Amino acid sequence: MPVNLTAPDPASLLPVAGLELGTAQAGIRKANRRDVLLARLAPGTTAAGVFTRNRFCAAPVQICREHLALNQGVRALVVNTGNANAGTGAQGLSAARDTCAAVARLMGCEPSQVLPFSTGVILEQLPVDRLVAGLPQALADLKPANWAQAAEAIMTTDTLPKAFSRRVQVGGAQAVVTGMSKGAGMIRPNMGTMLGFVATDAAVPQELLQQWVREAADASFNRITIDGDTSTNDSFVLLATGAGGMRVDSAASAQGQALREAIVEVARLLAQAIVRDGEGATKFITVQIEGAGNAREADAVAYAIAHSPLIKTAFFASDPNLGRILCAIGYAGIDDLDQTKIDLYLGDVHVARQGGRHPDYLEEDGQRVMKEAEITVRAVLNRGSAATTVWTCDLSHDYVSINADYRS
Amino acid sequence: MPVNLTAPDPASLLPVAGLELGTAQAGIRKANRRDVLLARLAPGTTAAGVFTRNRFCAAPVQICREHLALNQGVRALVVNTGNANAGTGAQGLSAARDTCAAVARLMGCEPSQVLPFSTGVILEQLPVDRLVAGLPQALADLKPANWAQAAEAIMTTDTLPKAFSRRVQVGGAQAVVTGMSKGAGMIRPNMGTMLGFVATDAAVPQELLQQWVREAADASFNRITIDGDTSTNDSFVLLATGAGGMRVDSAASAQGQALREAIVEVARLLAQAIVRDGEGATKFITVQIEGAGNAREADAVAYAIAHSPLIKTAFFASDPNLGRILCAIGYAGIDDLDQTKIDLYLGDVHVARQGGRHPDYLEEDGQRVMKEAEITVRAVLNRGSAATTVWTCDLSHDYVSINADYRS
Repeated sequence: MPVNLTAPDPASLLPVAGLELGTAQAGIRKANRRDVLLARLAPGTTAAGVFTRNRFCAAPVQICREHLALNQGVRALVVNTGNANAGTGAQGLSAARDTCAAVARLMGCEPSQVLPFSTGVILEQLPVDRLVAGLPQALADLKPANWAQAAEAIMTTDTLPKAFSRRVQVGGAQAVVTGMSKGAGMIRPNMGTMLGFVATDAAVPQELLQQWVREAADASFNRITIDGDTSTNDSFVLLATGAGGMRVDSAASAQGQALREAIVEVARLLAQAIVRDGEGATKFITVQIEGAGNAREADAVAYAIAHSPLIKTAFFASDPNLGRILCAIGYAGIDDLDQTKIDLYLGDVHVARQGGRHPDYLEEDGQRVMKEAEITVRAVLNRGSAATTVWTCDLSHDYVSINADYRS
Repeated sequence: MPVNLTAPDPASLLPVAGLELGTAQAGIRKANRRDVLLARLAPGTTAAGVFTRNRFCAAPVQICREHLALNQGVRALVVNTGNANAGTGAQGLSAARDTCAAVARLMGCEPSQVLPFSTGVILEQLPVDRLVAGLPQALADLKPANWAQAAEAIMTTDTLPKAFSRRVQVGGAQAVVTGMSKGAGMIRPNMGTMLGFVATDAAVPQELLQQWVREAADASFNRITIDGDTSTNDSFVLLATGAGGMRVDSAASAQGQALREAIVEVARLLAQAIVRDGEGATKFITVQIEGAGNAREADAVAYAIAHSPLIKTAFFASDPNLGRILCAIGYAGIDDLDQTKIDLYLGDVHVARQGGRHPDYLEEDGQRVMKEAEITVRAVLNRGSAATTVWTCDLSHDYVSINADYRS
């Protein structure tokens, strides 16, 4: 049961001029399931991406990086679910290249103008023939209004599609920002979620788009974790078709600021949606660290808390076993941490002061907060002024069930 | 259900001359449970310890370090379960000092000659009055033959007591090595398990004992992980009473070598027993990394595999979803890892070669190994000559149940 997340109302998803989406049932892993997504982009579209830092990155991630580096423009995206095309060696790279070539033939563009994405099982060869055979169906389905269908086609263990839109208006110019994401497990994006796409019909220069994709990732997909496993396939791509009326020349302009804000907001909603739909999730947890000596410390403490199976099972049980949080702060790797300076809050409840149980802390107050579906943990280290926020979920029986049975 | 672990036969646990053990029901957290252990040591006993690197270390860990640093000899250990005396601030430190003072009065020694240990719930004050009130009962119970009872008294979520003995004979001199441990969750000892004690009746100089306790920890308690949570209370103490016939003067002597080997073996058995009895464990997993560039790399890859919830749930399900292992190798933090050089083996099955699925790998071969109760994962990085071994267990529904309900 996702935490405070529902399927997007298709009417709420604004088409992005210059971007059409089409899906197909290619039978990549299972029959009768839309498992291929094709996106056609108007000439002149700029694109920028950030990708997994996993050194065992999938073949399509390698090809995406290569094609973006060539900087010959992006005219199409192709996404398949059911197979990650990771751990597939040279054959996997060929499969990804063959996929791009097939899309290029259908679209009338260069293979290097196609970005491929895969998600699903690792260590099995991509059935590229079936994928290619499904492309004409996706091509025939291309429509700007297909965001809801597209968001559904890229799901794996997701229980709900994830997509959001924002409209930006500055003076007389309008722009649309619409995005979708997928992912529910193997999520500790150091980079993007498993897959995230955000598009705008504004015109944005390549360099600015590259800056924004990093900033948006750092404020969204890089701030979430479900199980600490950084996937082989994480990809987050930002697209600007330029087919709408807004032209952004600099980040500092009024239009630039407004558009950037909308892009970051959509990315953050998409990232949080992944946590809300995390495998087996019953709680949405916000971990805030304040007073850290530097950003690295703040992140280390936040992720130690967000990754601890002991803390995550306590959230699942609504058990205010909060010593486990102090324990995680202690092993986060700050060598000169002074435990007697630490404050811990659960929601509005002051749990620990100077590293010890607050004299006024009552178990029933902790219990009250733990029963909520959205919980904020706040730790103040009193070492400096760095702060961070990370979003995660609890660890439930269903997480084990889902991952024990994923391939069956 | 522990994996290939049974309760020790009391007759197999050899008493250590110069060391007596006694237990009591003090009602620390629950009634009618032996929750206090007292150990009396002969004058002249040498002791050395390694303790958690968690900066939120418990009050008794701070006192142990302080007393060992004073180097006035150790005459007694006192252990309580049911309460970790961690996250308890200044009051917790007073409670640990008061405990040592009470033991010292009963034993006729100095408080600084007493080492205190606590394990249990964090962030609750230790009921020191009940603990002290239970000490006379433990004192009256002191016997050299009480190892089985002692190993049971220090259990928390353990399902079985853990204790092993070895006899060492070199020339005409004999020595005994007996040890016990406890721990089942919050286990990623960077140091010791939650609690581990190994004693010998040989005489060993303090400096040598200090060297051996580190070496033994590095070969045992520092090589295991259950859930990646390094506890606030991890302690491993090595004791040499000198009350037997063997006198060891150097590590290089025949006696020194034989005794060290027995100590390391007992420590390893105790550490592995903790994994075998890991919360909810159904599989005992050995992770071997070979061909790493250095020891740090080898450990990083081993722990990435051993901590991945995705890998651990796949083991629970006996599902050879082995791409998850390649994924973990990829995010272990080796920046210049070349995935095309990696070999992966599951038991005797060659799963991946040059980073891709081995052409001869059959799912049924992986499935056969995954169904075994003891499984070895071996990854060869082909970067250098460093190697390491880490022991862990799977992640099951019972882990979630146990930790969701721990305090109730």
